[in-house]
Amino acid sequence: MKSHILGLLATLALGVTTALTFPSGARGEATATGDLGLVVERASGSLLLVDQSERAVLARIEGLGDLSHTSLVYSPDQRFAYVFGRDGGLTKVDIVTRRIAKRVVQAGNSIGGAISDDGKLVAVSNYEPGGVKIFDADTLDLVADIPTGSKTIGLVDAPGRRFVFSMWDTGETWIADMSGTGSGAKPVITRITGMGSNPYDALITGNGRTYVVGLFGEDGMRALDLWADAPEPTDVLPGYGRGQEEMPVYKMPHLEGWALAGDEFVLPAVRHHQVLWVDARDFHETGRTATHGQPVFAIARPDGRQVWVNFAHPLNDTIQVVDTLSKQVIHEFKPGPAALHMEFTPRGHEVWISVRDANKVMIYDTHTFEKLGEIDAASPSGIFFTARAHKTGL
Amino acid sequence: MKSHILGLLATLALGVTTALTFPSGARGEATATGDLGLVVERASGSLLLVDQSERAVLARIEGLGDLSHTSLVYSPDQRFAYVFGRDGGLTKVDIVTRRIAKRVVQAGNSIGGAISDDGKLVAVSNYEPGGVKIFDADTLDLVADIPTGSKTIGLVDAPGRRFVFSMWDTGETWIADMSGTGSGAKPVITRITGMGSNPYDALITGNGRTYVVGLFGEDGMRALDLWADAPEPTDVLPGYGRGQEEMPVYKMPHLEGWALAGDEFVLPAVRHHQVLWVDARDFHETGRTATHGQPVFAIARPDGRQVWVNFAHPLNDTIQVVDTLSKQVIHEFKPGPAALHMEFTPRGHEVWISVRDANKVMIYDTHTFEKLGEIDAASPSGIFFTARAHKTGL
Repeated sequence: MKSHILGLLATLALGVTTALTFPSGARGEATATGDLGLVVERASGSLLLVDQSERAVLARIEGLGDLSHTSLVYSPDQRFAYVFGRDGGLTKVDIVTRRIAKRVVQAGNSIGGAISDDGKLVAVSNYEPGGVKIFDADTLDLVADIPTGSKTIGLVDAPGRRFVFSMWDTGETWIADMSGTGSGAKPVITRITGMGSNPYDALITGNGRTYVVGLFGEDGMRALDLWADAPEPTDVLPGYGRGQEEMPVYKMPHLEGWALAGDEFVLPAVRHHQVLWVDARDFHETGRTATHGQPVFAIARPDGRQVWVNFAHPLNDTIQVVDTLSKQVIHEFKPGPAALHMEFTPRGHEVWISVRDANKVMIYDTHTFEKLGEIDAASPSGIFFTARAHKTGL
Repeated sequence: MKSHILGLLATLALGVTTALTFPSGARGEATATGDLGLVVERASGSLLLVDQSERAVLARIEGLGDLSHTSLVYSPDQRFAYVFGRDGGLTKVDIVTRRIAKRVVQAGNSIGGAISDDGKLVAVSNYEPGGVKIFDADTLDLVADIPTGSKTIGLVDAPGRRFVFSMWDTGETWIADMSGTGSGAKPVITRITGMGSNPYDALITGNGRTYVVGLFGEDGMRALDLWADAPEPTDVLPGYGRGQEEMPVYKMPHLEGWALAGDEFVLPAVRHHQVLWVDARDFHETGRTATHGQPVFAIARPDGRQVWVNFAHPLNDTIQVVDTLSKQVIHEFKPGPAALHMEFTPRGHEVWISVRDANKVMIYDTHTFEKLGEIDAASPSGIFFTARAHKTGL
């Protein structure tokens, strides 16, 4: 009897001890996801889960393959991140349990993905084979395969369960309308020609209205008004481009998210140490600001009052802050070697900066410019806060 | 020895049993908060916690006092809601454990509250005594008391840890800058006179730049450019108001959130069955759309392509949808008696509508207008989705 009771006691003790020591976030601890984020550790195929208000790391999630060029999107509840790796990996990460929920390798060489506005579909664009694949966001089952016969770039989501993407080889933009696919119907594809020579990247404005394509094969950009019944390419920024200069396409500016700064968009110039200001209504150029080097990213603080700019190697240890009203540089500092990516807290009071070669993410107050903290990270690159779940095109 | 062991065993068994039966959401189940929301049950002092993607109720939280006129804001992590009740109650609700975390009764008669951009401070404005009180968001300790000598209205948050509010009796707007208060310093108050006769409500634009005050005692509105070094009142919409008509102030249109629809703001006309369109850059009127009745709320779908309008009693069983491009009414339907409040999912694919006298919240697809579901709710009024945590002025 005594040994029986002692055995039971020991079992209960073990069970209780296990319940009490189970890693937090998996069980036993309530989690709110509104101020979490993921930092890509580009050399190690891992993600750091971070907490914005704690300014701390919560976990490292490993096993995501080649993250040398990575983006990710969030499910509407912010529970899952869908990570698009260069090696064609599509990984669904559960940030509440801090585990990989599912992973598929869906193509040879891929860059870029998006999630539909209702969170039901995840799309990935591929260089090889050229095209877009669309997956059920819950199961990662393939729902649609859209071959394009071309290296496919500039994939974004648009309201109404649509995806928009463009073709490097053919200069076309396609709109894939998936809204009728609940009943098993095929996507309805609208093909738009004449978008220009060698589209290399694209963006959609925050309201989901305007899709802008950057061109490598000619100067100028093309825009589509997605609110039109039959969108047609219009020319914007006719002089914008590399001119006659031979340069590799990866040196062309990223078009990710022209954030609104006041009544203008701001973007890096090509081959000039400047940022351009562009009227947000009609896209004509309204001014330029001279900068420290060739800008890589020009990102507006969420209220649009400032624009934070980083620069191409070898000047990538420096950040400049430009005031939207005066168009002047109001602050300059050197966080460290290879300050490659910036992400603002959703209401803009802090900015987090990946300083790759210092193996740190550094955190600054955007009003006082004071450094607030830093987080250790192995070769950090992209930083993605969960507030992106609520935005079109991110 | 045996009784000692048995006692220990019983204690362990009780402990384990309690751990296993603790209500889900409080312990044992991980929660993502990105697509949750709270519905005010105005007659019963309770809130319904809802899940957008499940289209279901997760819990009812009771004991919030007088919620006949209620607003709430969220902490940046979306874990807490701060509920501002008409009876002066300030209740901090933990939506992960689904409990009231803390509650104070901070004034006699109060309406309106806000949370600072960094989530550290919660402000509440009061009719009695007139003024604003500011609380630590974590503990609800009083941090600052700003008496105004007037019924205080139009309280909003602004970037840089500021609060802006106006005075019915004196026609002033004050900006309370709390950014220096980390070290115990007092708020820095900027007093702006000449905002007009009897300000009754105000709003701040989504970028936190422009504060617009509605007037009861005269026609027209006043705006402040908060990006100016010394903001001064400027006139906007000079004809907007009740004219000579005697009407109670509660019939004046709510100014909550002029959402951007394309390049314009849209708002209810006063004493006309119309909505007004207003240029978002210079605030001049650009057009009017005739509507079913006197609009109460005119709310843009997040992408700005549509505006959904509800109406004053006795026409409050009807909703109209206006297309931003054509300015025409494109859809009209009757969800039921007293369709009083509308809330869009953050990316706009659904709208949730409180139909108070049907005791339901009804859910519609904003592209097809199909009804997707409904939720039982007791006298529902305001609906607040957690995505508001990431926005200025909401």
